[in-house]
Amino acid sequence: MNFCSHCGAPVRFAIPLDDDRPRYLCDNCGTIHYQNPRIVAGSLPVVDDRVLLCRRAISPREGYWTLPAGFMENGETTPEAAIRETREEACAEIELGGLYTMVDLPHINQVYMIYLARLRNDLEPAFSAGPESLEVRLFREEDIPWSELAFSTITKTLEYYFRDRARFGRDALDVQHLALYPLHADVIRRW
Amino acid sequence: MNFCSHCGAPVRFAIPLDDDRPRYLCDNCGTIHYQNPRIVAGSLPVVDDRVLLCRRAISPREGYWTLPAGFMENGETTPEAAIRETREEACAEIELGGLYTMVDLPHINQVYMIYLARLRNDLEPAFSAGPESLEVRLFREEDIPWSELAFSTITKTLEYYFRDRARFGRDALDVQHLALYPLHADVIRRW
Ligand SMILES: [Zn+2]
Ligand SMILES: [Zn+2]
Repeated sequence: MNFCSHCGAPVRFAIPLDDDRPRYLCDNCGTIHYQNPRIVAGSLPVVDDRVLLCRRAISPREGYWTLPAGFMENGETTPEAAIRETREEACAEIELGGLYTMVDLPHINQVYMIYLARLRNDLEPAFSAGPESLEVRLFREEDIPWSELAFSTITKTLEYYFRDRARFGRDALDVQHLALYPLHADVIRRW
Repeated sequence: MNFCSHCGAPVRFAIPLDDDRPRYLCDNCGTIHYQNPRIVAGSLPVVDDRVLLCRRAISPREGYWTLPAGFMENGETTPEAAIRETREEACAEIELGGLYTMVDLPHINQVYMIYLARLRNDLEPAFSAGPESLEVRLFREEDIPWSELAFSTITKTLEYYFRDRARFGRDALDVQHLALYPLHADVIRRW
């Protein structure tokens, strides 16, 4: 940040009076420009014994596999953001279970929120690559490309899922069943 | 937003190519200025059969009672933000249980995340009003000032808590016990 978005004057980076950390300050109009972490909302879509992954068409980590997820937008709820991102990146419609992983990434000012989800149309699951994906596929646990996952948040979420699935069972994977799966809260301080 | 924070040129509000919603665009340097929801992190501090509330010294809702909570900062985790806000507003040290309520407020672009917490030093709980509070007090369920609560997120969180406490019991209120309490996810679309 170099200029005040309110009045256009140059800003300086300093600790305001009665504050304890530096902010971008505008001496011309008096605005203090706060900066806050962003939420990355997404889903872990499940169909029978498989999970849906997208291969990234964009940087960072182009060509690597990820869960559908992206920055939450103003005006939407966290579940709405997870559904929208899944629609955009995997052209897939999901039914959400509960919030499943919440991962703080303080070094990049992000909070991941991944919902467990059921892919709709189980008999003939419908999905395809959106503009930010090269490819979308369903993977059984034994086929997960662990060494080609894009982000540690995704690796953690999948590890939690297969561990919980072994514990809670994978039959009758409806939304009620998904509610058995607990929230996993985590912090990752470096990629 | 009137000016580009990167180059200082005026911005316009329009839908970028390959996007589906309007953003603040800088035609001079090409920056697209995204705006995203903010996280309000806080705690519900419990000591034996009482909960801690703060009476607000600042607007909005000056003079009304709230849980200690505020905007999460860059560089911190959500639990760290909840602990910091409790320290700042109630001069209290807490031990966190799990994430307890997560409330989406899409009309004001906020997501509330309230952690269940145990106030440290149970025998002689230590707390006092920070600069943004007029008063900090412990309340039994029957003394909660329901009509003088500052925000509907706070009312909901307290309602959930007293309902869960009736169900799970309030003895042995240690962090292990708090982990019994489930996450409540909610959406409030208007105050
Ligand atoms: Zn200014
Ligand atoms: Zn610019």
